[in-house]
Amino acid sequence: VESQFIAWLREHVPPHPRLRLGIGDDAAVFRLPPQEECVVTVDALMDGIDFRLGAAASCRFPPVTPQFVGRKALAVNLSDLAAMAARPLLGVVALILPKKDGLKIAQGLYEGMLPLAEKYDLAIAGGDTNSWEGPLAVSITLLGQVAGRGPLRRSGAKPGDKIVATGHFGGSLLGKHLQFEPRLQEALYLNEHFRLHAGIDVSDGLSLDLSRLAEESGCGAVLDLTAVPIAEEAERLAEQSPGGRTPLDHALSDGEDYELLLAVPPEEAEKLLAEQPLETPLSSIGEFITEPGLWQREGAAPRRPLEPRGWLHDFS
Amino acid sequence: VESQFIAWLREHVPPHPRLRLGIGDDAAVFRLPPQEECVVTVDALMDGIDFRLGAAASCRFPPVTPQFVGRKALAVNLSDLAAMAARPLLGVVALILPKKDGLKIAQGLYEGMLPLAEKYDLAIAGGDTNSWEGPLAVSITLLGQVAGRGPLRRSGAKPGDKIVATGHFGGSLLGKHLQFEPRLQEALYLNEHFRLHAGIDVSDGLSLDLSRLAEESGCGAVLDLTAVPIAEEAERLAEQSPGGRTPLDHALSDGEDYELLLAVPPEEAEKLLAEQPLETPLSSIGEFITEPGLWQREGAAPRRPLEPRGWLHDFS
Repeated sequence: VESQFIAWLREHVPPHPRLRLGIGDDAAVFRLPPQEECVVTVDALMDGIDFRLGAAASCRFPPVTPQFVGRKALAVNLSDLAAMAARPLLGVVALILPKKDGLKIAQGLYEGMLPLAEKYDLAIAGGDTNSWEGPLAVSITLLGQVAGRGPLRRSGAKPGDKIVATGHFGGSLLGKHLQFEPRLQEALYLNEHFRLHAGIDVSDGLSLDLSRLAEESGCGAVLDLTAVPIAEEAERLAEQSPGGRTPLDHALSDGEDYELLLAVPPEEAEKLLAEQPLETPLSSIGEFITEPGLWQREGAAPRRPLEPRGWLHDFS
Repeated sequence: VESQFIAWLREHVPPHPRLRLGIGDDAAVFRLPPQEECVVTVDALMDGIDFRLGAAASCRFPPVTPQFVGRKALAVNLSDLAAMAARPLLGVVALILPKKDGLKIAQGLYEGMLPLAEKYDLAIAGGDTNSWEGPLAVSITLLGQVAGRGPLRRSGAKPGDKIVATGHFGGSLLGKHLQFEPRLQEALYLNEHFRLHAGIDVSDGLSLDLSRLAEESGCGAVLDLTAVPIAEEAERLAEQSPGGRTPLDHALSDGEDYELLLAVPPEEAEKLLAEQPLETPLSSIGEFITEPGLWQREGAAPRRPLEPRGWLHDFS
């Protein structure tokens, strides 16, 4: 029923003025806005790793449907565009479906993706549909366009820059990892109105992704543990396992927060934090320093090393 | 060892002038040639479906290594660009690796991809690396640029057009499915020098892909069975199973030939076939007609319906 699904797609994926030829040919045809820099990103999500189809993520959360998975698969890619401060242009979707219920799953995935695509004016240009005896995997590639001040790289942080974060961290597993809103509007607004030196989205863990940003910038980072905005869900997770990890531990290493970490020059950060121009709170949670590595400080005590922790794909 | 692999990638994937920022950030940054139409295509390959890692495809063929798989994963995508007559620009690669031997497999995949990328001047812009307990899957997305006469769509065939094919068909399983050369140079040359109405690459089967081309063009197609160029491997496969499928059967339905089927106006086809401008032979194997559907003819007998056969992803 591959052909049946393609017929369904042609009916349900709306045309977009950016596309000159959409689903159904060997490739999609489009024309990009001239003279602009573009970005491309790809992210694959797999059943059992990034989600568990059919499982209840928590007692307060409905079972994980294909719709949730489709939404998440697109949202994590949009979050990568946000991390570059790039406006979404178009995307292609490769599906690896289980043979059983493949059609229903495929349609559900798109039902989850399409509203988000529409919200962010992303053209779905096409895809590839496969099936096997294995579990579901979804790979999405997005093209984006860089506006105004150019792409927000990981490599631009300078010693003295403040570490500015959106939102709250930790406990994403209780539901946010499926329902988060990519910080696209926020990234585009901030990159247009403020001087940002670097940025990354927190997918694998606050401490791990911050250490990557610092490393790419050739500097170090000090995290002010008392300033990390901890999500209510991190508190809840900690309560559920007394004697286990603290809310702060969760915030530093859970990952899948899909918040932004930005390197902002100090005077610009001061302006930004005073203004609080976004609906989501902006916090200054430390600063970049010359000495390499990741560090923690708490109150007036001297800084100590902080081990970056978070999600790493482990293979050998 | 995800970080170890990314370090390896940065060392082994060459920089490309088209890329302003390659592997290592949240997305890659590039600038496209202005004012041109682009195409985007994605194709995922899975262990057990599109290849069998470690298996000997035939007694005359070496075991299927990650290098072969990487080469094939890129080649099938380049073949899609060929089918659009688009010049390769850049690609991103999503890997879903088995946990065991994941690093060796990942490196092998790239060792298979990189020479092909270099040959066709494709910039590898980045990727995503994942691991799980399941089998290997590779998803590649390519961007291409359409030259001269515009993209070669599936929808342009007109009744009266000749069906012109490159190369030979059938028996790809004996090795060609891993070693084929995408018909990129051929497609670009033909689209520049001849008036082509439509085109498709044969991935799923000559008869199946021809029927798709005809359907997209709103017409029918008659295949001249005596004119189909049959690969030597199709003869060999038929010999190996006496009483089974004939060489012609193999040619019509095996798929993975990655040859081109073109719709060419009759006078242009005559010129093209007389000139034979390519190293690979060009054959006229029938014509498009007004009446919908796929048809066969043999000699002077009236045409009869031909059932499209080939590879279809089967899920329910």
